[in-house]
Amino acid sequence: MRVVTLAGGTGAAKLLRGLAAHVDPRDLTVIGNTGDDTEVWGLHVSPDLDTATYALAGMLDVERGWGLAGETFECLRGMANHGADTWFNLGDRDLATHLTRTRALREGQPLSRATARIAADLGVSVRIIPMSDDPVRTMIRTPAGRLTFQEYFVREKALVDVVGVDYDGAPAAHPAPGVVDAIRGAELVVVCPSNPVTSVGPILAVPGIVDALAATAAPVVAVSPIVGGAAVSGPAAALMRTRGLPVSPLGIARAYAPWLRRLLIDRRDEACAPELARLGVETDVADIIMTSRAHEAALAGRILERR
Amino acid sequence: MRVVTLAGGTGAAKLLRGLAAHVDPRDLTVIGNTGDDTEVWGLHVSPDLDTATYALAGMLDVERGWGLAGETFECLRGMANHGADTWFNLGDRDLATHLTRTRALREGQPLSRATARIAADLGVSVRIIPMSDDPVRTMIRTPAGRLTFQEYFVREKALVDVVGVDYDGAPAAHPAPGVVDAIRGAELVVVCPSNPVTSVGPILAVPGIVDALAATAAPVVAVSPIVGGAAVSGPAAALMRTRGLPVSPLGIARAYAPWLRRLLIDRRDEACAPELARLGVETDVADIIMTSRAHEAALAGRILERR
Repeated sequence: MRVVTLAGGTGAAKLLRGLAAHVDPRDLTVIGNTGDDTEVWGLHVSPDLDTATYALAGMLDVERGWGLAGETFECLRGMANHGADTWFNLGDRDLATHLTRTRALREGQPLSRATARIAADLGVSVRIIPMSDDPVRTMIRTPAGRLTFQEYFVREKALVDVVGVDYDGAPAAHPAPGVVDAIRGAELVVVCPSNPVTSVGPILAVPGIVDALAATAAPVVAVSPIVGGAAVSGPAAALMRTRGLPVSPLGIARAYAPWLRRLLIDRRDEACAPELARLGVETDVADIIMTSRAHEAALAGRILERR
Repeated sequence: MRVVTLAGGTGAAKLLRGLAAHVDPRDLTVIGNTGDDTEVWGLHVSPDLDTATYALAGMLDVERGWGLAGETFECLRGMANHGADTWFNLGDRDLATHLTRTRALREGQPLSRATARIAADLGVSVRIIPMSDDPVRTMIRTPAGRLTFQEYFVREKALVDVVGVDYDGAPAAHPAPGVVDAIRGAELVVVCPSNPVTSVGPILAVPGIVDALAATAAPVVAVSPIVGGAAVSGPAAALMRTRGLPVSPLGIARAYAPWLRRLLIDRRDEACAPELARLGVETDVADIIMTSRAHEAALAGRILERR
């Protein structure tokens, strides 16, 4: 079965590992968010692409949910001597990814090619495609000014007020090669349990992607990143509020209607089902907080079965 | 006393530490070779500038003679996954230096400014100046083609035949700001015990530097990198032969005449003294292979006393 996923960071990594347990990796495509890409120490860092790649390579630090397992941070300590920002934790092994990507980009290669090459280098056969080769930057509007997503999320620990979110560059961006074709040719599209505003939102902001989601014959299934009125991880709740979206599966459905066929929600949100039905979204109820590899695979298996 | 040194790598590092034990760091200037600068993983690496900086910061790995003490190599292992060259050993802490330099150069800063900044960041008050802000690259001609110095020395372990040495870019290069003034205003110029062909040679190839050495009122004193018919370290012997220079203090004197006032030679080369005198070079005889910090300081003290 040809499965295409829209993926952000931590939550997506879990579901991707689960899907990879069932689907031939060559039939699995990840369309990754690049809205939170950033430059650190002169290097191009693509946090969500890397999280997906590392997860599928079996190299992700499972405790932290980002970066490489067993990572060291000696270069980071060295950078502190040079007055560089050290709030964004780049590990020593992780640096090899960013050095490889940055060199490829400086040589004029598109991000999609660099991404495919890095995945192949790490033994990942799943196709990982950035949403766009063009720069799209998620900017968080706060009362004190705009922050990049990483400044907001990592440096400020998502503790500042948010008044809005922009996707700089999105109107002029094009889907990366293969993105639209993958969605149109899919047998199942899965929107991972990622933040709808800053993980999936930037993907949807690239002109042409929503059209492909609306046009595909494949069912589009999402897993709610909101359980019991709160985000499973990350700042989704605060960001959804700035968009006027209720912090519940209803807010997820609203963000993804009218192309969303079905939403997987947690048992404790079962009461949302009738209202989801009124939005035209089917409901599937399960324990959706993935707490183990077995759980990841079970949830993925359920999505694949019920498509 | 205002002391200016011309410096290559390992041998220079020892003498520089020795000089710093006697001279106010603000009165000590290092003019560093950049002919063996190279690009590794997209980063600008300046091995000789870094060796001088690390030595003066007390951070040099004394065993190896290059890089940082206690260094780790995790990024290097990561780069192996990406098919990158891994014969040039960049350590994780060391990477912070190269990332800082590369970013500064990409922002349009000259190498001299990046070098001064890195030294200051590491607490070094000695003035370290690259010979030039313009690119000069030492190229080793072999029967099979030309190699950069690092390809020749590190990758090929100096085991290939050498038929000549070029300093690409030198004719068009200018001394970095401060180089000529430092030499002209010096009270003593010390040519470190570095390879005359690939460490000091590139410095001398920058138009204007030899003129400054010839014009300065300061005595110019060199320490021989050749002892008992062999280089104390590195490939100086083979490289001197390609220049038709005898592998002895006489070859050093010939490379540096006519502006060399005095040459420090080892006891076992004492027999060279009469011929050095015929070249117009005074001789000072000592145990010049520096085997300890105390020895480094003693040799430096002797040079300062007898200037």
